[in-house]
Amino acid sequence: MSKGRVLSIQSHVAFGYVGGKAAVFPLQCLGFDVDVVNTVNFSNHTGYGRFGGSRTTAEELSQMFRALEENGLLKPSRLLTGYIAGAEALTTVAGLASKLRQRDPQLIYVLDPVLGDAGKLYVAPECVPIYQSMLPLATVITPNWFEVEVLTKINIVDMTSLKGALRVLHEQYGVPNIIISSMILKPWLKEALPDHIRPSNAEQDRADYLLCLCSTSSNTENPDDLSMVHAYAIPCVPGYFSGVGDLFSAMVLAHLEPTVSPADLEQLGTGQTPLSYATSMAVTKTHAVLSVTYEYSQSLPEDERLPTDDEKDKEDPERKIRRMKGRELRLVQAQDIIRSTSIEECRRMEPWTTFWKL
Amino acid sequence: MSKGRVLSIQSHVAFGYVGGKAAVFPLQCLGFDVDVVNTVNFSNHTGYGRFGGSRTTAEELSQMFRALEENGLLKPSRLLTGYIAGAEALTTVAGLASKLRQRDPQLIYVLDPVLGDAGKLYVAPECVPIYQSMLPLATVITPNWFEVEVLTKINIVDMTSLKGALRVLHEQYGVPNIIISSMILKPWLKEALPDHIRPSNAEQDRADYLLCLCSTSSNTENPDDLSMVHAYAIPCVPGYFSGVGDLFSAMVLAHLEPTVSPADLEQLGTGQTPLSYATSMAVTKTHAVLSVTYEYSQSLPEDERLPTDDEKDKEDPERKIRRMKGRELRLVQAQDIIRSTSIEECRRMEPWTTFWKL
Repeated sequence: MSKGRVLSIQSHVAFGYVGGKAAVFPLQCLGFDVDVVNTVNFSNHTGYGRFGGSRTTAEELSQMFRALEENGLLKPSRLLTGYIAGAEALTTVAGLASKLRQRDPQLIYVLDPVLGDAGKLYVAPECVPIYQSMLPLATVITPNWFEVEVLTKINIVDMTSLKGALRVLHEQYGVPNIIISSMILKPWLKEALPDHIRPSNAEQDRADYLLCLCSTSSNTENPDDLSMVHAYAIPCVPGYFSGVGDLFSAMVLAHLEPTVSPADLEQLGTGQTPLSYATSMAVTKTHAVLSVTYEYSQSLPEDERLPTDDEKDKEDPERKIRRMKGRELRLVQAQDIIRSTSIEECRRMEPWTTFWKL
Repeated sequence: MSKGRVLSIQSHVAFGYVGGKAAVFPLQCLGFDVDVVNTVNFSNHTGYGRFGGSRTTAEELSQMFRALEENGLLKPSRLLTGYIAGAEALTTVAGLASKLRQRDPQLIYVLDPVLGDAGKLYVAPECVPIYQSMLPLATVITPNWFEVEVLTKINIVDMTSLKGALRVLHEQYGVPNIIISSMILKPWLKEALPDHIRPSNAEQDRADYLLCLCSTSSNTENPDDLSMVHAYAIPCVPGYFSGVGDLFSAMVLAHLEPTVSPADLEQLGTGQTPLSYATSMAVTKTHAVLSVTYEYSQSLPEDERLPTDDEKDKEDPERKIRRMKGRELRLVQAQDIIRSTSIEECRRMEPWTTFWKL
């Protein structure tokens, strides 16, 4: 069992599972040697309100990359980048990614452009153009809705703007594969979905849904289409959990085999692409880990599973801390899920063949 | 599957498997949540000759510990400390260990007093008294032969001095459990071994052996004895491999159950203690991973499996780097060994009942 070598560049926390702590162990479980460069070394994720530790400077990152290079240790077959603290450090990582891409056109690079969420940037604005410059290097990008808007400068308010944003990413920035893993099912989006992807009314009564959408321009069946789009509506797990996106991106990296044969993809169903396969596996495993975590958090004493409430949190910061702790991903306890190779209960990304015609 | 929470404080390298990289993944595989505090962040282990990155300062460690404490995240059931860079940082860690010990007398603390090897200190001399002050806090210590000598100030040259050194550790420093995992089988030691532990002449012709010895003062069968001693002669794997001690200490931590019932211990054979059981499992798994690594290193092209030769290394530093790279522990590939719960092919620590009478 030797799947190759991943270079993972993202944040590190002592306690809990975000950034590298959410990505590295799952990748190791799946057989990858992982080279781990920590862009911050914090006690815990910043959502707790209080944290200690330090950011790795651009100079320290450069020293590390230089030593790896001089020692002949900089030959990953896959690259994963997540949260990087500050424009200077990001520039250093961009330089490394560019060098690795030039050296190895086969490099599988999953770029999670961590910029912000829900309308709020949580990096310096100078980071945006740097991430834009990195997009052409990526094999796959995994932005959230807000990050797509920031990167493309397009407000996504309808199918036209959604298609426009994907077009900018595919054409202007040359990104072959895009995954937007949790789009809010706004009315216009729900309406546009084909029946086989849209949750039924009965399903929607029971739970909220998020849409996972992936788009690959590298193999289109219809020459008129810019890309092949797949989508899947995921039932929401209530509450906010940190590190989910980091786990998801790692699972995409682990399951993406760009050269997999069509016959192998057929196992999952017709009309699948390497990207939709990797996304299906990532959605399945991430959702299963999240469900285990949710069930655990619900089993805790009442004061450790307090619902999110910003006002009450403000009055009592400990309230938030107890909630955060109870919602750390149960990665270690759910490692058999990560390791599973079964596709029987797979959440399958379905072809959305009419996407570009809408 | 929830085994509890380990706080691991040791070095981090981006590439390869020493320090935390050799300990954390195996502990996670065995079901432990691991809180990971990195005492250095280097590109690779220093044996490569070239490395980049930085040490975590005492101030940064303090900040991290303080934030963990204030967030109520400092409640490990087990503590593992390994290489710590510099006397100031070590003092900070000693303070933390003392606090955790005071707070929880049941805390299982495996202390690897990383001082040096083969007659050479590789930490500042100021670290020695700090490590001595930490000894009373430990549940188990895992020094090598040289570290025992430095900590006890006793030159181990015969059974009398060996017994004297163990006496100092058990009595003067109050350490309940001591493991010395790879003692060179000098003639006086070989001679002193009981027949059922000493490798036969035929075995000694086929391989060199190292002795793993453990000594527990917490449950002695004979009130005249200071401790119960167990030992096992391990066939040597040729060559030097880094991170082996770090993996070993982690496996001791994982398998030590101080309150295990005598009936459960009986499964492994008569006369076993919780310490000898944990040591047996650690020896078995570490040796198996090392064997997998050795076989892999032997399968490499000739210039990546060059034998250790200091003179040739000096002429050509790349020679050493290629060798180091080929000898990184195959932890990810051997993860099923780590996860195994079988005791059938266990390398069993045998009671050395005459030890204190020699």
